[in-house]
Amino acid sequence: MFGIAIHGGAGTLPRAELDAGRERSYRAGLAAALEAGRAILAGGGSSLDAVERAVVLLEEDPLFNAGRGAVFTWEGRNELDAAIMEGAGRRAGAVCGVRHVRNPVVLARTVMEHSDYVMLSGEGAEEFALVQGIALVPNEHFRTEERWRQLERIRAGDPRVSPLTISHVGTVGAVALDSAGHLAAATSTGGMTGKRWGRIGDSPIIGAGTYADDRSCAVSATGHGESFIRAAVAHEIGARMRLAGQSLDDAVHGVVTVELGGMRAEGGVIAIDRGGRVVTAFTSEGMFRGSVVAGGDPQIAIYR
Amino acid sequence: MFGIAIHGGAGTLPRAELDAGRERSYRAGLAAALEAGRAILAGGGSSLDAVERAVVLLEEDPLFNAGRGAVFTWEGRNELDAAIMEGAGRRAGAVCGVRHVRNPVVLARTVMEHSDYVMLSGEGAEEFALVQGIALVPNEHFRTEERWRQLERIRAGDPRVSPLTISHVGTVGAVALDSAGHLAAATSTGGMTGKRWGRIGDSPIIGAGTYADDRSCAVSATGHGESFIRAAVAHEIGARMRLAGQSLDDAVHGVVTVELGGMRAEGGVIAIDRGGRVVTAFTSEGMFRGSVVAGGDPQIAIYR
Repeated sequence: MFGIAIHGGAGTLPRAELDAGRERSYRAGLAAALEAGRAILAGGGSSLDAVERAVVLLEEDPLFNAGRGAVFTWEGRNELDAAIMEGAGRRAGAVCGVRHVRNPVVLARTVMEHSDYVMLSGEGAEEFALVQGIALVPNEHFRTEERWRQLERIRAGDPRVSPLTISHVGTVGAVALDSAGHLAAATSTGGMTGKRWGRIGDSPIIGAGTYADDRSCAVSATGHGESFIRAAVAHEIGARMRLAGQSLDDAVHGVVTVELGGMRAEGGVIAIDRGGRVVTAFTSEGMFRGSVVAGGDPQIAIYR
Repeated sequence: MFGIAIHGGAGTLPRAELDAGRERSYRAGLAAALEAGRAILAGGGSSLDAVERAVVLLEEDPLFNAGRGAVFTWEGRNELDAAIMEGAGRRAGAVCGVRHVRNPVVLARTVMEHSDYVMLSGEGAEEFALVQGIALVPNEHFRTEERWRQLERIRAGDPRVSPLTISHVGTVGAVALDSAGHLAAATSTGGMTGKRWGRIGDSPIIGAGTYADDRSCAVSATGHGESFIRAAVAHEIGARMRLAGQSLDDAVHGVVTVELGGMRAEGGVIAIDRGGRVVTAFTSEGMFRGSVVAGGDPQIAIYR
């Protein structure tokens, strides 16, 4: 048994803003990332390799808000956050506020495997990247014109856009179960369009946007990060399974629909348990997502 | 009913390194911070005000690893992390990697109350401080000669010192219950002597080193931050009470003694529940700590 689920962001997304061609492009990007992860798992690879690879492909795809195509800060820069965690030993790595790392999820894994630390930030994290032989790229690498226009609209106070519109919060992530029975989760993001003051969201916070524990499940979140931090969403879902005996389904829906819904927090999560059951839930109108389990067909979806 | 508990760090601490005069100074510092928090609570003030005030006093005391007297990074700077959270609405604020903020816990509260964010980092957090009228101080403000000598010993690879020795990880924190029945927690630290690459520990991570929830308890942690992040210690303790019906005592000891002990993680936590019960636990030889409840005498302790 193995399985993987991925997401490419949740938030409000009027159908009118997603024409057929654009929707095809999003679906193709999700399908490619999902297949890359699936192939690793089908070949007996680890869930850690699978989630890292899937997230790398989403970071490389300019449609998603991670790596190239990340949203801009208020000052017009790209500042990236990412985390990865494996459920067997609950080892974890995370980076935040990096500006010159092409694949933040790869650096997060390097932090986990080649440092004594869990979380590195800013220029220090980039110094560590260089020490580890990871080349830096110019901040320009992440720039897309569409994201720039979104920043200009936010800066101009355009009432039709909100920092919580899906195009402004489309974090990416993956969760997987491998054939050895181990879980893993990874998340990567550019954060929120127009974010200021070195804001860090939930994605790189172990327990908020990312968590994996072989005793329960692996979770990756996307949405209004501040609420996800306050509710410790990713850790809470596993805690409900482990401590209250809830199913993955009940735990995910209880946290996302009831708890985050009660906080009026937009967003969602993907989660997978040790049985390979995948559950997705979101409070928003849409969430880019996909999943596939051993012997099944890949599922890609955007709306409910 | 009200109560407050504080800590000034946990770790290994050979009694030989703490002579009588020095021990008196530590006890006096803890007593002053505890009394400041107690006085606020006795006057009907909020738990949020009490934990902030207690932590400010510990930040001002050069004996503790927070604010003035913080440990040095590998590069010889002071980089400070702090967080605060209130249990009624589960609002939270945190800052990490700040170098010029005299009282990081005050900035964390300002983030919580005067921004749309939960966590701000580095120079951005300092820009926010200035916007909010908080004056910056030179990095030199935090310097003490003792901390500098500790860095020099770490850099020289002195085998008698470890980055996990208490003097190198002595985070401060406070948890409180106010007479309105609301909980709050706050934590502040300079991190680990010789930390590199913009390392962020558990203190500013909501759910790891700091958490408060009126449904369960308020927790502040100190110790080997990486393990505390991986186990989501502060959130886990409340989750065990809320989801598994455990007492504060069972939850704290289960997480600290069993879980962190199993990870061979040095450190400890202070916690308080809605009934004003205070529980402290640590895996290390000592932990600077104190507590007082309405109508009781203040308790200050260092060893078991």
